[in-house]
Amino acid sequence: MGNKVTIALDAFGGDNAPLEIVKGAAEYAGTDPGSHIILVGKKDVLNDILKENDIGLSNLSVYNADDVIETTEHPVKAIRAKKDSSMVKALELVKHGEADAMLSAGNSGALLVGAQTIVGRIRGVDRACLAPIVPTLKGPAVIVDGGANVDARAEWLRQWAIMGSVYMEKMFSINSPAVGIINIGAEEEKGNKLVQDTFALLKEEKDLNFIGSVEARDIPESQADVMVCDAFVGNVVLKMYEGVAKTLVSEIKKAIMSGTASKIGGMLIKKSLKGVLSTYNPAKYGGATLLGTKSPVVKGHGNSEAEQIKIALEHTATTVRKNIVANIAENIDIAE
Amino acid sequence: MGNKVTIALDAFGGDNAPLEIVKGAAEYAGTDPGSHIILVGKKDVLNDILKENDIGLSNLSVYNADDVIETTEHPVKAIRAKKDSSMVKALELVKHGEADAMLSAGNSGALLVGAQTIVGRIRGVDRACLAPIVPTLKGPAVIVDGGANVDARAEWLRQWAIMGSVYMEKMFSINSPAVGIINIGAEEEKGNKLVQDTFALLKEEKDLNFIGSVEARDIPESQADVMVCDAFVGNVVLKMYEGVAKTLVSEIKKAIMSGTASKIGGMLIKKSLKGVLSTYNPAKYGGATLLGTKSPVVKGHGNSEAEQIKIALEHTATTVRKNIVANIAENIDIAE
Repeated sequence: MGNKVTIALDAFGGDNAPLEIVKGAAEYAGTDPGSHIILVGKKDVLNDILKENDIGLSNLSVYNADDVIETTEHPVKAIRAKKDSSMVKALELVKHGEADAMLSAGNSGALLVGAQTIVGRIRGVDRACLAPIVPTLKGPAVIVDGGANVDARAEWLRQWAIMGSVYMEKMFSINSPAVGIINIGAEEEKGNKLVQDTFALLKEEKDLNFIGSVEARDIPESQADVMVCDAFVGNVVLKMYEGVAKTLVSEIKKAIMSGTASKIGGMLIKKSLKGVLSTYNPAKYGGATLLGTKSPVVKGHGNSEAEQIKIALEHTATTVRKNIVANIAENIDIAE
Repeated sequence: MGNKVTIALDAFGGDNAPLEIVKGAAEYAGTDPGSHIILVGKKDVLNDILKENDIGLSNLSVYNADDVIETTEHPVKAIRAKKDSSMVKALELVKHGEADAMLSAGNSGALLVGAQTIVGRIRGVDRACLAPIVPTLKGPAVIVDGGANVDARAEWLRQWAIMGSVYMEKMFSINSPAVGIINIGAEEEKGNKLVQDTFALLKEEKDLNFIGSVEARDIPESQADVMVCDAFVGNVVLKMYEGVAKTLVSEIKKAIMSGTASKIGGMLIKKSLKGVLSTYNPAKYGGATLLGTKSPVVKGHGNSEAEQIKIALEHTATTVRKNIVANIAENIDIAE
């Protein structure tokens, strides 16, 4: 399983917290004896859940936090005001070196703010970016920024490109990952000002395998392992992926159920169809890593159940074991 | 068919020009005796095509233009330099009142520039926007701006919202169309600066049926008839629609062909599947109208064949007959 990893888990973050979070933690801890999961949250509640579910793993511990940041709270205000929340306490465990990484399925905005203000950024990184993985025909690709900075600068996008490249190289063993910028046309002069400015910066990066523009139409079949954009565009891309696929599949299912012949046909293709849909299910990559912080901070899906928490914990542990942070620090140039 | 409409058609614009353009014009002119289509381009070439294809319609005429703007040319430079091009000549026919509207499947950037500089903008409109129709579960919806202005201001988006609303009301007989802003979350404080500023302006528009944010995930099932965004985001949305649907369908087809049982299943669902896919085919709406110009200018798909040109001509004629321009002029407030 690899070397020892300690993960601080926000046990009260997410729609299904704390029960599903605890269950997922127990499932993961059971399969990875090299890990130690610290459940952060209301001690009594957590201990009751452990007892009721007969969970008694030596590599699973509880760390008390009396408060909870709700998903509807204002990110900056919540992080400032709720010092005793499970999210803030978990981030502080990382800050003080008592955990190697942190995972939360709670308030995304608060996590982004908390990670950067409490754990802090790697020297030379202006803004941390969220790095969700999307499935493409070629395999997994990362979108940077997939959710943190909606109003961005070209220099930030340049740094995200470098961090994304390191991430894909280490996490998925991709040699010299192809980096593309999400654009509205293939030609260099296409795009808004941000994209044009970033394009010029990326062209100068000799250590990056920059392949130019990736048109949104080509993202599902893209040759790029790293797709660079601001977080507004990144979010639109991620959500369109999800939305169009979901609607199309539900329409196809409806069409299949509309007649006897097509119903039989539907039964015959069911298995093949399932295979395709699972390939296109982003959930299988378990959580998005925040790139640029001094220790890994991972955002789990808000609606995570035990299975997704288990996958996200595995992902978080891999991020630590692959030394993503040290590798980013080595590759980011420090402005003088 | 409605009252008399004269359309200037750029017969040398598009990948399949001039042959498919002329054929499409002939097909349309034959079905709409109330229309008059002016084929603009090299006179001799066009007359030869008409002769070779035995086209002798009284409502189809030829207007000479010796030059052609290629799709790879720089938009502003091309419009300035090529005064004798089929695109510029067709726009000038509209400017001088010899045609009611113009259609081109040629260089999109040049058409956007040419339409605004030659035909000109309606008083009070800061920037014209492109208004492509996308299919949703509810029916057709328009994206404004779907392709013209990648770096935009909130005030422009406000005007596009008004123009989009007029457009959907008149073209599709939708009473008080629902207007949404494409955003990365449902809450008002979500979004980048442009979206937040626009949100505030749209909330104040008492004549608009503003329903707030539309998350990208929900676009295919959106309740909005008009979706407002800058052209970079609009292009990403349009292209993701196309790209995800295309990839998913091709993957499903591959999966169906992978085994004997699923092959038989595939044959049985073929018809139902076709129905779904045609619902999600944006091409059926034929071209995107430029909103905000003094006369309708419509952009056809670059790869249009005769059938698409015919549909786009019908669309262009409807834009004239529904008095879109006069209705926009009435609803746009003039800044003093």
